[in-house]
Amino acid sequence: MPQPPKVTSVTPLPTSEAKWIEFQKITWSDQTGKSRVWEAASRKTRGAAGVDAVAISTILRHPARPPSTLIILQYRPAVDAVCVEFPAGLVDAEETPEEASVRELHEETGYKGKLRYISPTVVSDPGMSTANMQLAVVEVELKEGDAPPDQALDAGEFIELVVVPLAELFQRLEQYSKEGKRVDARLWHWAAGLEFARTML
Amino acid sequence: MPQPPKVTSVTPLPTSEAKWIEFQKITWSDQTGKSRVWEAASRKTRGAAGVDAVAISTILRHPARPPSTLIILQYRPAVDAVCVEFPAGLVDAEETPEEASVRELHEETGYKGKLRYISPTVVSDPGMSTANMQLAVVEVELKEGDAPPDQALDAGEFIELVVVPLAELFQRLEQYSKEGKRVDARLWHWAAGLEFARTML
Repeated sequence: MPQPPKVTSVTPLPTSEAKWIEFQKITWSDQTGKSRVWEAASRKTRGAAGVDAVAISTILRHPARPPSTLIILQYRPAVDAVCVEFPAGLVDAEETPEEASVRELHEETGYKGKLRYISPTVVSDPGMSTANMQLAVVEVELKEGDAPPDQALDAGEFIELVVVPLAELFQRLEQYSKEGKRVDARLWHWAAGLEFARTML
Repeated sequence: MPQPPKVTSVTPLPTSEAKWIEFQKITWSDQTGKSRVWEAASRKTRGAAGVDAVAISTILRHPARPPSTLIILQYRPAVDAVCVEFPAGLVDAEETPEEASVRELHEETGYKGKLRYISPTVVSDPGMSTANMQLAVVEVELKEGDAPPDQALDAGEFIELVVVPLAELFQRLEQYSKEGKRVDARLWHWAAGLEFARTML
């Protein structure tokens, strides 16, 4: 039976032990020609595509149900909480971001759809890291009576999938936050932009 | 005269030298009870509010112009590019995120507005860092003939402010990307959600 995951200790990580991330000391010349130093964290896993990760905004269309999207809930040790996110994952070494988008969506949700659009490379938190990503838009057309597909998770992956009508997404994310879950900032921004268009324009 | 900023060297940063960020070795117990290790980067600057940063989605309303938002362009050494972002900044040690939102918006853009909403705490990149933030919505009502305000930047801050009609935001971000600028993932997601609502619902 699954039990609630939890952090048991946090200690400083010596750079010599770090396998997945590294620190960079960046020396740069500013707009006045002055030499300055910036500190950044960086993933060690970036492959040939030059892009660390992809996330997928899915639009589920169904003849009898409102247009919906897919979000996932998974425990994240870095923030010691269940996080609410778009399906997402790292781009494999020899994979394109487009391929990674379709693969990750299938693994994490079971759904297969058509890639409608993929963003240019955008930067996840450029004040503190080199991390970058692309956001895909994938459309899934369902028919009356289609059964929900099975996820294709790796052993040891615990990912809960939730289908949310787009008109309810923002309020759902507010509710998750009240329950102590942590919403990913990018998903929050997407939902906030959608909600803004629906209610304030 | 300002000159183009550029990175002159990137070297590994020993943890003993790091002033702004640190690495954590997080030991956690997973859903099967197995002990596992996660690596995360963390800001050292988090204050009493428990929130690292705020960003501000501004809505500028004017009697004769379309509803618009404010975005900023600034060089970011971590990604060696001019980044396109919502106005944003770190929350000071004894400040609330609400106060930081109004202060940062004024410093970076000169505009003063009414805080309409602030998000719960959301997590910026929870697969690799502990970083968190809140997204504020600030509304600015302009009158016919109001002159654009002056920014209140610190010495050494080079931040270009751009007013963009909301209906043009997504295409503007695509254009900036084509020019080699890097759009912040959160701003991209907000604009993508807005565009999605405008064109695909």
